[in-house]
Amino acid sequence: MAIYLDDLTVGDKAQFGRYEVTREEVIEFASKYDPQDFHLDDEAAAKGLFGKIAASGWHTAGMTMRMQVEHWKETGLDKASLGGAGMDEIRWTRPVYPGDVLSCETEVLEIKPSRSKPDRGFLKSRWTTFNQNGEPVMTVITTGILLRRPKAG
Amino acid sequence: MAIYLDDLTVGDKAQFGRYEVTREEVIEFASKYDPQDFHLDDEAAAKGLFGKIAASGWHTAGMTMRMQVEHWKETGLDKASLGGAGMDEIRWTRPVYPGDVLSCETEVLEIKPSRSKPDRGFLKSRWTTFNQNGEPVMTVITTGILLRRPKAG
Repeated sequence: MAIYLDDLTVGDKAQFGRYEVTREEVIEFASKYDPQDFHLDDEAAAKGLFGKIAASGWHTAGMTMRMQVEHWKETGLDKASLGGAGMDEIRWTRPVYPGDVLSCETEVLEIKPSRSKPDRGFLKSRWTTFNQNGEPVMTVITTGILLRRPKAG
Repeated sequence: MAIYLDDLTVGDKAQFGRYEVTREEVIEFASKYDPQDFHLDDEAAAKGLFGKIAASGWHTAGMTMRMQVEHWKETGLDKASLGGAGMDEIRWTRPVYPGDVLSCETEVLEIKPSRSKPDRGFLKSRWTTFNQNGEPVMTVITTGILLRRPKAG
């Protein structure tokens, strides 16, 4: 099964995903890509904004992307996905701590066929990532490039 | 040495960083956080927009963040950094391939003291990530929370 750009409608919402945040992974990610004390060191984190070790915002984005891609594969949307064009308004609205369990919601905001390439178009969506208490930890507006449904014949 | 929000000026630019992109790391990152075929599989990538295996955009963001944090530690800006408030207008302007060597440029766009907390403020900057040919591969507008210079006495 495949889902194409033409199969989506503005206002479509979906909830999905489950990602358990482990201390080990938080520290591993931050060590590689965001080695600030408050992501790595208990004592420094206690003095900072987060109060205890919290995931890098980029790690939260990565965990969110993982849930998105798995969802696309489950629904057949992966067949249409050509890649991401950009991301706007990333906001990390709450810290993500080891032990949190994340999940996703997406809402379709805009569907725009490409002017230059008739086989594809742009899908603008809002992604919200929640923790286990239903509190949003990250929101972002994404623009992806998707194939349109191939014409019969 | 520490650099605080008050030590920065709108228009300040800095160039720094060097990050060698390896095939192993591109595949490791994508396997965990962005398991789409065109980041993982040579054959699928050959048919896609990128022509060959390319790094996840989130991986490029992570490599960029790593260079940023190292730069902050080198300059003393890390002492003032309390965390990121958000990211706007992330654009992946060119694919990043294994073998590429990335570097960074930042430009200060706006400095705004916090109204509610006099010890800190917001720093808006444009980050541009370049490949070894001087071509931009990613741009993003970032907003960070930084400490102001402590008052003497």
